Amino acid sequence: MLVGPLIERKRDGGALTPEEWSALVAGYLDGAVPDYQMSALLMAVVFRGLERAELAALTDAMLASGQRLSFGAWTTPRVDKHSTGGVGDKVSLVLAPLVAACGVAVPMMSGRGLGHTGGTLDKLESIPGFRAALSLAEVKEQVLRIGCALFGQTSEIAPADQRLYALRDVTGTVAAIPLIAASIMSKKLAEGLNALVLDVKQGTGAFLPTHEQSLELARTMIALGEDRGCPTVALLTAMDRPLGRACGNALELEEAIAALRGEGPPDLMEVTYALGVEMLLAAGVERTSSKARKKLESALGSGLAAEKLEQIIEAQGGNPRVVEDPAALPQALAVEVFDAPATGLVVTIDPRTIGRAIGEMGGGRTKVDDTIDPSVGFVISVKPGDKVLAGEPIASVYARDEAGVEIAFDALRRAVVIGDRLSTKPLPLVSHRVTKGGVEPLGGAGDGEREKGRGKAKK
Amino acid sequence: MLVGPLIERKRDGGALTPEEWSALVAGYLDGAVPDYQMSALLMAVVFRGLERAELAALTDAMLASGQRLSFGAWTTPRVDKHSTGGVGDKVSLVLAPLVAACGVAVPMMSGRGLGHTGGTLDKLESIPGFRAALSLAEVKEQVLRIGCALFGQTSEIAPADQRLYALRDVTGTVAAIPLIAASIMSKKLAEGLNALVLDVKQGTGAFLPTHEQSLELARTMIALGEDRGCPTVALLTAMDRPLGRACGNALELEEAIAALRGEGPPDLMEVTYALGVEMLLAAGVERTSSKARKKLESALGSGLAAEKLEQIIEAQGGNPRVVEDPAALPQALAVEVFDAPATGLVVTIDPRTIGRAIGEMGGGRTKVDDTIDPSVGFVISVKPGDKVLAGEPIASVYARDEAGVEIAFDALRRAVVIGDRLSTKPLPLVSHRVTKGGVEPLGGAGDGEREKGRGKAKK
Repeated sequence: MLVGPLIERKRDGGALTPEEWSALVAGYLDGAVPDYQMSALLMAVVFRGLERAELAALTDAMLASGQRLSFGAWTTPRVDKHSTGGVGDKVSLVLAPLVAACGVAVPMMSGRGLGHTGGTLDKLESIPGFRAALSLAEVKEQVLRIGCALFGQTSEIAPADQRLYALRDVTGTVAAIPLIAASIMSKKLAEGLNALVLDVKQGTGAFLPTHEQSLELARTMIALGEDRGCPTVALLTAMDRPLGRACGNALELEEAIAALRGEGPPDLMEVTYALGVEMLLAAGVERTSSKARKKLESALGSGLAAEKLEQIIEAQGGNPRVVEDPAALPQALAVEVFDAPATGLVVTIDPRTIGRAIGEMGGGRTKVDDTIDPSVGFVISVKPGDKVLAGEPIASVYARDEAGVEIAFDALRRAVVIGDRLSTKPLPLVSHRVTKGGVEPLGGAGDGEREKGRGKAKK
Repeated sequence: MLVGPLIERKRDGGALTPEEWSALVAGYLDGAVPDYQMSALLMAVVFRGLERAELAALTDAMLASGQRLSFGAWTTPRVDKHSTGGVGDKVSLVLAPLVAACGVAVPMMSGRGLGHTGGTLDKLESIPGFRAALSLAEVKEQVLRIGCALFGQTSEIAPADQRLYALRDVTGTVAAIPLIAASIMSKKLAEGLNALVLDVKQGTGAFLPTHEQSLELARTMIALGEDRGCPTVALLTAMDRPLGRACGNALELEEAIAALRGEGPPDLMEVTYALGVEMLLAAGVERTSSKARKKLESALGSGLAAEKLEQIIEAQGGNPRVVEDPAALPQALAVEVFDAPATGLVVTIDPRTIGRAIGEMGGGRTKVDDTIDPSVGFVISVKPGDKVLAGEPIASVYARDEAGVEIAFDALRRAVVIGDRLSTKPLPLVSHRVTKGGVEPLGGAGDGEREKGRGKAKK
C-alpha cells in the first residue's frame, strides 16, 4: 500500500475507501504505516473531516483490532454511559451502581484524567486497593455476577485506538470530532451493549465548548452507534461551571458516596437522574421517564445503590468500608477555607481554572505516567447566581502543603467572579436530548414536561 | 521544547515565532523533534500557510543548517537560474554555459527528476563520466576558474531541507507554496549569488498548474530572496506543452547542444534568451534587454557558449566529445516513428502524459534511488496549433525494447489530441515578469515592446 497518495487524497478533500481505512489501521498496528505518515493523515482529517462511510470504516477497524465482550444468551440488558468529560463530573460513580441496582447490567469502561478534566478511574483509585485493570474475562464474570464493573481500557480492547490516541495526543490531532467519535465508539462498541447513553458536555469547561460542536459530536457518535446495532442517545449537559461541589479525586468519590446516600448536591442529582432515566428506558426495563425516575429514586432511597457500589469496590480489590466511612479515603494534610473576597452575585466559576489547579496541586497528570495525589482539590459551596457576602466562606481547599493552598486560593480568586449581575445565564443543566431522530430541546424543564415533549424531536 | 502546543497553534491559524521555527528545525536535525510531529506540523502548514516572518525564519534555519559558498572579494557577478520544473525543460543546459560565456559566473545547483518532471542532473549524467556530486570547495574552484559549475545538493548544503523534503515527499506535504519556496530558496541562497532569476512554470505540466499559484510562488520566492539581500526576478513561462522537441535525458542534452550550435527549436530559444536577458541585467553586465539579448546571441553564434559547455563537462569528468558528436551519448535500441492518427489541428500535447511515459519506459524514478536509462524518450516535432495530415510522422520514440515503444505510442495517442480547432489558446511562452515591484504582463510581446513595458509593473 502506498500511503502518500492516500494522504494527498484526504488533504485535497477526497474520501478514502473503507478498505483503505482498514488497511491503514492494520498497517499502522503492524508497523507498515509509520507514525509520520499516520500523523500527517490525521492532521489532514482535522481539516477535511471524514465522510460517514470513512468514519464507520475507521471505527470498525479500531474495534476489530481488539476483542469484544460477548454475553451470549444472557438476557439481562447491558447499557453504558459515556461522558465527554469535565470538572467535578463524578456522575459515573453514582450512576453505574444506581442503574445496576435497577437490574440493568453496566459494563463501564472509563478513562483517566488528562488536561483539565478528571477521570473516573483516578477517582476510583483513591480507594485503597481498588484495581481498575481488569481483563475482559474478569469484566464479564463480574458483570454476570453483580451487574457492574468499572474498568479501564486494556490492550485487549481497541489497541489501534490506544496507539492512535497516543499519537494524536502529541501531534495536535486530538480536537477533531470524527476522530473523537471514532475513538470513543470503538471502545464502547466493544462492551457488548444493548444500548449506550452519552453525556456530551458543553460550555467553557467542556473539551468542545460550543453547543454546535457538542451537538455535532453527539450526532456523529449516535450515527456510529445506531449503524452498528447499538441504540444510542445523548444528553447535552452543562459544563460552564463545575458539577456538584467537590472537585478532586477522593473528594469527588466522597461526594458520589454521599449522593448514593441521598445527600448529593441538586445539580449532580439532576444530571445523574436524567442519564439514569435514559439508561432504564434504553434497556427497556421501564417505558416512561417518570416510572424510570421513580425506580432510580427508590433504588437510591432503599440503600441498594450504595450497597451495589460496595459490592463493586469489594469485587475489584478495594476497601468497601469507604462507602460507610469516607474517612478511610486519603485525607489532605492542609485544609483551609476560602472566603468570598467581595459582596455580590457569583457570576462565573470557571471550570478550567479549577481543573488545572487540581493538576498543579498534584492531583492531575501532565504525562500519562505521572502519579497523582488523590487527596487534593476543592469543595465549592456556591453556584453562579448565588448571593455572597464579603468574608463568607464559599469553598474549602484540600492540599498537600501551604504551597498547594496558595495555588488553590489563587485559582479560586481567578475562577470565582463576583459581580452585580449575571453577564450570561448559566447553561441549563440538561439542555437537549439527541437521538437518531433529531434534537429535542429540554431547557431545564421538569420531568412532566419532558414526557410531553418526547416524540416532538426536531430534525 | 513542547512541540504539541506549537502544532496546535499552527493548526488553529496562529503563527510560530522565528525562535520557535529555528528551534524546530534544529530539534528535527538532532532528533529531539520526531518525524511524526514534524509531519503533522507540515500538514497544518499546508492548510494554514506561513506568515512572512515564519517563512523567513524557516528558510534561514534550513540555510543555516549547512554551509554557504563565499567568493570573498571576487568581483565577477554570480547569478543563477532556478526552474520549478517541467517536461522537455532543458533550458539550464543551454543557459548556464551561455551566460557564463557572457562573463557572468553561474554556480548552478540543480535537482533530479521525480514524478513527471525531468531533472537537469539526470540529463547531465547521460554524459559518460559526468560527475554532479561536487563538494562546495570543488564548486568554488571551478566557478573561479571557468565561470560555471553544474552540481547537485550535497549534505553540505541545507541538510535540514534534505531531511524535510524526504519527509514531505511521503506525507503529502510537498504541495504547499511556502514550503516549496523555503526549500528552493534555502538552497539557492547558499550559492553566494549576487542575483537570482526564477523560471516559474504554469500550465497543466507544471507542478503548480494555475497562473495564480505560479504567481504566488514567484512572489513568495522573490520576497525571500530580496529580504536576504539577493535581488530576485521571476518569469512565468508556459508548461501546457513540452518545451522544445526532445523529452528524455540524453535526447534533451542533445537538443541543448544543438541549441548552443544555433540549431535550437524556437520555443526553447525564446525561453532561454528571456531568462538569459534577466540574468545579464541582474548581473549588471548589460543595461538594456536588447543589448543583453545581442550579447547572448553573439556568445552563442561565436561558438563560445558551446565551448563553455565543453569546459564544464571536462572539468566535471565527463566526455566533452559529446558536444561535437552527440552520438557519443547513450543511444536507444528501439527507435520508431509515430504517425498522426488523423488529419486536423494539434489541439494539445499533454506534458504530464509524456513525462510519465518516460518514467515508465525506464527514464525516470519512482524512488530516489532508482537507476534510470538515459537513452529513452520522445522527439515530438509538432506543437499545438500545427496542422497535420493523417499518417504524417509527428514524433520519434526512443525505447529500450518493443514494450517501451508500446508505452510510448500509447502515451502519444493519449497526449497528442488532434481536432478541428484549439479549444484553449496555448499559453504565451513567457507571460509575466515578476519583481519585488510587481507583475508585468508580457503576453508574448517582442523584445522592443518589453523594453517599453518595463517599469510599468502592476502591484
